[in-house]
Amino acid sequence: MNFNFIDGGVCAPKGFRASGTYCGIKKPNIANLNPDIKHKNDICLYVSDVVCNAAAVYTQNKVKGAPILVTKANLAKSGNKAIAVIANSKNANTCNADGVEKANRMCELVANELNVPKEQVIVASTGVIGQVLPIEPIERAVPILAKELCYNKNLEAATAIMTTDTVKKEYAVEFQIDGKICRIGGMAKGSGMIHPNMATTLNFITTDCAISSELLQKALSEIVKVTYNCLSIDGDTSTNDMVCLMANGLAFNEEITAEGEDFEIFKAALYEVMANLTRMLAKDGEGATKLLECIVSGAEDKDTAITVAKSVVCSSLFKAAMFGEDANWGRVLCAIGYADAEFDINKVDVDLKSENGVVAVCRNGSGVDFSEEKASEVLSSDEIQILVELHSGENQATAWGCDLTYDYVKINGDYRT
Amino acid sequence: MNFNFIDGGVCAPKGFRASGTYCGIKKPNIANLNPDIKHKNDICLYVSDVVCNAAAVYTQNKVKGAPILVTKANLAKSGNKAIAVIANSKNANTCNADGVEKANRMCELVANELNVPKEQVIVASTGVIGQVLPIEPIERAVPILAKELCYNKNLEAATAIMTTDTVKKEYAVEFQIDGKICRIGGMAKGSGMIHPNMATTLNFITTDCAISSELLQKALSEIVKVTYNCLSIDGDTSTNDMVCLMANGLAFNEEITAEGEDFEIFKAALYEVMANLTRMLAKDGEGATKLLECIVSGAEDKDTAITVAKSVVCSSLFKAAMFGEDANWGRVLCAIGYADAEFDINKVDVDLKSENGVVAVCRNGSGVDFSEEKASEVLSSDEIQILVELHSGENQATAWGCDLTYDYVKINGDYRT
Repeated sequence: MNFNFIDGGVCAPKGFRASGTYCGIKKPNIANLNPDIKHKNDICLYVSDVVCNAAAVYTQNKVKGAPILVTKANLAKSGNKAIAVIANSKNANTCNADGVEKANRMCELVANELNVPKEQVIVASTGVIGQVLPIEPIERAVPILAKELCYNKNLEAATAIMTTDTVKKEYAVEFQIDGKICRIGGMAKGSGMIHPNMATTLNFITTDCAISSELLQKALSEIVKVTYNCLSIDGDTSTNDMVCLMANGLAFNEEITAEGEDFEIFKAALYEVMANLTRMLAKDGEGATKLLECIVSGAEDKDTAITVAKSVVCSSLFKAAMFGEDANWGRVLCAIGYADAEFDINKVDVDLKSENGVVAVCRNGSGVDFSEEKASEVLSSDEIQILVELHSGENQATAWGCDLTYDYVKINGDYRT
Repeated sequence: MNFNFIDGGVCAPKGFRASGTYCGIKKPNIANLNPDIKHKNDICLYVSDVVCNAAAVYTQNKVKGAPILVTKANLAKSGNKAIAVIANSKNANTCNADGVEKANRMCELVANELNVPKEQVIVASTGVIGQVLPIEPIERAVPILAKELCYNKNLEAATAIMTTDTVKKEYAVEFQIDGKICRIGGMAKGSGMIHPNMATTLNFITTDCAISSELLQKALSEIVKVTYNCLSIDGDTSTNDMVCLMANGLAFNEEITAEGEDFEIFKAALYEVMANLTRMLAKDGEGATKLLECIVSGAEDKDTAITVAKSVVCSSLFKAAMFGEDANWGRVLCAIGYADAEFDINKVDVDLKSENGVVAVCRNGSGVDFSEEKASEVLSSDEIQILVELHSGENQATAWGCDLTYDYVKINGDYRT
C-alpha cells in the first residue's frame, strides 16, 4: 500500500490543535531572565475538539516515570477516553518522592483551564531523572498554552518535547476508508536512552479516523512491535517511554469496530507513520552520523527475524565499525550468533548495501572475497543497510539503529550540567 | 579466606613450562622482514610435565571459532585429559571454510613436536573474524616454541595472546590442601567484544593441585558464573570465548575426589585468581579510563544480584556518565529498572564509592540531596564502586565493567586495518 505524506504532524488529522512554549523548567539562570533570548520550547499541549478513543503502550522498565503511572490511571478511570495531552522536556519527573502528585497537578491544571475531566488528560515528561520537577513554571505556562492552541501549531509542540534531539520528528499520512479521507499524524522525541521494550521514548499519534478503543489498542500494540520496538540507539530502555494514540472520529467514516479490510488499511497507515518516525529517531540517535537498517529475511518466524535484526543494530562493536566505515562483517556474524533465536548459522548470507551499491561479504556463514574499495564506497553513505538472509523460512523484519561515535560519548559524558 | 599472591602466572604451579614468539600471523609487511624490529609475540605454547585433568567452558555464541570446536572434540576423545595448549592472536580462525582443518593442524604440529597424543592438545585463537588463517608461520613457529619451553616463560606466553590489550594479565596464588602447598595460576586476554556467556574471552588456568576431572569442571563452572560471566566491556559475546583449567597433581596432595573442605578451599583459591583476572580485564577494557565495580547486596537470590549488577555495568549511558565523572545516578536506577529480575524498586538504595569517599545518591528509589562537589571527588578516581542495596534478602554479587570513552570508538572504528 502507498500512502501520501502530508504536512501537519499531530495537527494533520482534523480537529487537533496544539501549542508549545518555554516556561523555564530547568533551573533558571541569568540568561533566562533576559527577554531578548529565545529559548527552546520546553512544554506543549495538544487537544482534540471532541473526546477521543485512546490507546497507549508504556515502558517495561520497573522504574516508571510518575507521568506514566498517572496516565495509566487516568485512562483506566476514563475508560480509554482522552481529549488533551500535556508534555514537557528538561525533567523526567521520575524517581522523585512527589512525582505522582506533580504529574496529577499537571493534569488538573489542564483540566481546569479547558474545562474537561481530569482523567481525560494524558501527561508525559522527558529529561533528567531524579530531580524534583518545579511546578510553578508549569502553572504559569498552562493558561498560555491553552490560549495559543491552534490547528497549525504542531511544530511548536514537536520542538517542545526535544531533549538532545537535533531535529524535530513529525510524520503524517492521508488514506481512504469507507470513501472518506482519513489522516494519521505523529510526533516523537528521542535521541538517547533508546531501546524500547513494548513501548518507546515519547511518541504522540493522532488520527481523525473513527475506530473503537479496542481496535485502536490492538493496532497500536501490533505496530509498536515491528517499529519502535525494533529500534535501538544505546540499549538503554528509558523509564518514561510511552506511545499514545488518540482517534477523534472527525473523518466521519463508519467506525471500525471489527477486524477486516478497513482495519488492515488503518494498520498499514499507522505502520507508515510509526516506521518513518522510528527511522527519524534512529538517524538522529545521539552523536549518530549514520542510520543503520538491518533487514533480516528468510526467517522461520517473525520473532526470529526481529531478534536477529535487533542484535545486529545493538552491537557496540559493529556500530563503531560503521562509524569508521570499516567493512568488519565478522562483527555482524558475531552479533547474529549471540542473538537469542534458533537458526542454522551455516546458511547465513550477509550483504552491505547503500545508495552507492551493494557488496556481498558472507555466504553460508563464511567470508567471501570482496573489494575493500567497493565496500568503502558503500559504507561512505549516511544510510547503510545490512541485509541478512537466514535461508530457513519466509519471514522478514527490519531493525533500526545508528553508529557509535565520539559524540555519543561526549553528549553522555556530561548530560546533567 | 586469604591467599598469598605469587608470581609466575600459568607457570606458578609446579611442572608447567611455557614459551611465546612472533611468527607473523598477520599479513607480513616490509617492516616484518627487518630482523631489527622487535614484534609483539603472536603465538604461545604451554605444557605440563605430566598429563593433566582438564576442564573447560566455551562461548554460547552460535558462531563458534574453529579452535573451540576442535578443543571440545579433543577433550571428548581424551576423556578430559590434556597436556599442552597452543594459542595465537591476530586471527580468530572463525567463519573460515577451512577453519577446523587449520585448528586440527595446529594440534597435530604440537603433538608431533612434543610426541604426545593429538587429542591432549588444546587450541585457541583470537583476533579478526573471517580472515583465512595462514598456517605456514605456525608451522615454522611450533618447533621454536617447543625448544624454548621454560618454567619461567609465562610472560612470553601472556603477551602472545594480547590483541588490543594494553597490559598483560596474569595472577597466581598459593594455598594449602592436605598439608601440601598448592598453586593456581592464570593468564587472560581480552579488551573488547567482552560480554561472556557461560565462558569468556581466552583464559588459561593451571594448577598443581590433584583434583578429579569432574570436580575440576564443577569448580570451573561455578566460579565462571560469578567472575567472568559478571564482566562486560561492550555487551558483545565473542565467538572464541574459552576458559580452560588444567590440573597436573604435582603438588602431591591427596586427590580431591569429593566435595568437602578441600574442595571449598580449592574453589576459593580459584575464585581469587579468576576474580582478579576479571578485574584486570575490566580495567583494561578497550579505551577504558575507569574500572566500574557494581556490588549488589540484599537480593532475594544470587541470580537477581548478578542480573542487576550486570545491567548497571552494561549501560552505555551510565558508562559514558562515568567517563565524564558525572554523578548521573538516575541512569543507575534506569538500568536497575530494566534488569530482567524481580524486586521492589521502591526499596532500592544507591551509593557511589571510591578511595576518595562515598556519597549516597538514592534512598528508597528516590533521589536524595548530595554534594556535587563530594560526588565529583569520588568519581575522579580510576576505580569506582556502585553500591546497590535491594533490601529484600541476603544475597550479594559483583559485576565488573569500564567506562565508555572516545578511545573505545576510535579503537573499534578501524580495527581490521
